[in-house]
Amino acid sequence: MRPTIVLVMAPALTVDLFDDSLLDRLRGVGELPDAVPLARFDDPRADDLLARADVLLTSWGCPLLDDAALSLAPRLRLVAHAAGTVKQHVTPACFARGLLVTSAAAANALPVAEYTVAAILFANKKLFRLRERYREVRGFRYWPNETPGLGNYGKVVGIVGASHIGRRVLELLRPFDLQRLLYDPFVDATSARTLGAEKVELDVLLARSDVVSLHAPSLPETRHMIDGRRLALLRDGATLVNTARGALIDAVALERELVSGRLDAVIDTTEPEILPANSPLYDLPNVFLTPHVAGSLGSETRRMAEMAVAEIERFARGEPLRHAVAAIDLARVA
Amino acid sequence: MRPTIVLVMAPALTVDLFDDSLLDRLRGVGELPDAVPLARFDDPRADDLLARADVLLTSWGCPLLDDAALSLAPRLRLVAHAAGTVKQHVTPACFARGLLVTSAAAANALPVAEYTVAAILFANKKLFRLRERYREVRGFRYWPNETPGLGNYGKVVGIVGASHIGRRVLELLRPFDLQRLLYDPFVDATSARTLGAEKVELDVLLARSDVVSLHAPSLPETRHMIDGRRLALLRDGATLVNTARGALIDAVALERELVSGRLDAVIDTTEPEILPANSPLYDLPNVFLTPHVAGSLGSETRRMAEMAVAEIERFARGEPLRHAVAAIDLARVA
Repeated sequence: MRPTIVLVMAPALTVDLFDDSLLDRLRGVGELPDAVPLARFDDPRADDLLARADVLLTSWGCPLLDDAALSLAPRLRLVAHAAGTVKQHVTPACFARGLLVTSAAAANALPVAEYTVAAILFANKKLFRLRERYREVRGFRYWPNETPGLGNYGKVVGIVGASHIGRRVLELLRPFDLQRLLYDPFVDATSARTLGAEKVELDVLLARSDVVSLHAPSLPETRHMIDGRRLALLRDGATLVNTARGALIDAVALERELVSGRLDAVIDTTEPEILPANSPLYDLPNVFLTPHVAGSLGSETRRMAEMAVAEIERFARGEPLRHAVAAIDLARVA
Repeated sequence: MRPTIVLVMAPALTVDLFDDSLLDRLRGVGELPDAVPLARFDDPRADDLLARADVLLTSWGCPLLDDAALSLAPRLRLVAHAAGTVKQHVTPACFARGLLVTSAAAANALPVAEYTVAAILFANKKLFRLRERYREVRGFRYWPNETPGLGNYGKVVGIVGASHIGRRVLELLRPFDLQRLLYDPFVDATSARTLGAEKVELDVLLARSDVVSLHAPSLPETRHMIDGRRLALLRDGATLVNTARGALIDAVALERELVSGRLDAVIDTTEPEILPANSPLYDLPNVFLTPHVAGSLGSETRRMAEMAVAEIERFARGEPLRHAVAAIDLARVA
């Protein structure tokens, strides 16, 4: 079959997501009636495009695919999401109608894992602190005395959550002389060993690690999983890396630990998403704070589009999808 | 044979370099008359210890091994250096006497390569700049517009010098979707491909790369190899990473490019080694400056000691050394 493919996403994205060769691949496998994406379903083009759509190729900014929207798209068979989580737009109604859903979460995992690995290597070496300290003293010090315990050799890295991202981080850490611990209630000790890690309980992971990196989904039951009691389990001078979601951590307790200087942090995700202008986290020398950019951005969005297009090609050829999302996943993935 | 082993290095190092089990390995293979190292050859213990030494186990702070020093050590056969370059203490006189020399440069390469890989991943993602920009605006921006061209997907990384460190960087970069270029006059195109890189001339490398990382030795002929003309070849927004030696770059020309904001830099080595207190490099938002700490430090020095001890064990068993340094290497290695 040659499916009709409709793009639904924030228009600003398409420059980075698609180049001509990728649009040509879509035109090779199906009909692409309009290369300018829909951003809203009250767009004057929406009724016609949705009526013809066999496939929605979605990304960030796709409106909610609820019953009202789906009723405009009676032919729809596949939602191919060129981004990570589908929880912002895919509803139970999609699965109730038997739609196929696929996401590029596996592609989106790569840049987050890359950010994380770089953050771990810099954190164990205390480079963020040494940079600030060098700015202060502008002279020579015996640097190991300035930031005791530095170095990447033999350090313990604790990974919380064997998600796409957590697994990729463990894989990328293999070449380094680091011990790896994993906490994930759904992974047994044997599988953890296959991933190159020792399975431990969360409290043990926090107590033993030099760097802890969070890769758990944001769910009601993971809200504030890193609370004040658990932060207190971390060693003095340990680093917490959060590229997952701010809600995983009790922000008040974390701020207290960071302001005291007892812990270091590399933080890409916070709650709220943009911190108040008076948050101390912007300026603390022991905090490297970035504005939720670890995921695919710029050139990295192209990889997600390529994954979505490859899924549409498989769909058109009648082959199974490689990155299908099931209804049950909505409740347990990020 | 059971060689007599004498430690020669700055005493502050031994805490990190050796633990009891490593000293026990030395005692297992030979005689260790004194676990407290010599730091100077006018130490009252020096004449006796050097007279008995078959092996000098050296590290940072070892005095020059010139004819005067060597004449005190008539039994000496091996200088095993538990650090990187031997150029600070090993002289032609050592080779003239037929001494074996070994270094832990291969072990010291690992932390430098780790720093470099982390710096490359952060630099392509423009994370150093985004952190500073987020501090300034303390609000939401469409971040790809703030730092155009960001992202690690499909970027070009140029490696200057296939040293131990350069090779390790290329190896560690394999899992990433990055193009790798290599400039090294002693490596042919086929060998470069084996290392996962495309061999190019230096000017081409500078013009094509998003990030350039220097891993060339500091020699008279490499002084200022990156001069003003070559810096001008770098693309707007490109990042220069220097963990090698400050002398490789014309510091005046580099400062001009960095102050203008045209280029970014991650710099661990400068000329002079400690920058003057009024250097703009300390504070520029596009410069991540660290105080020559990319090499083995803290826990990482242990790995160099383990490599030196393993070489001494091979020597004692009559096996060939794995990391021998030849006279000719003094003129071409870092």
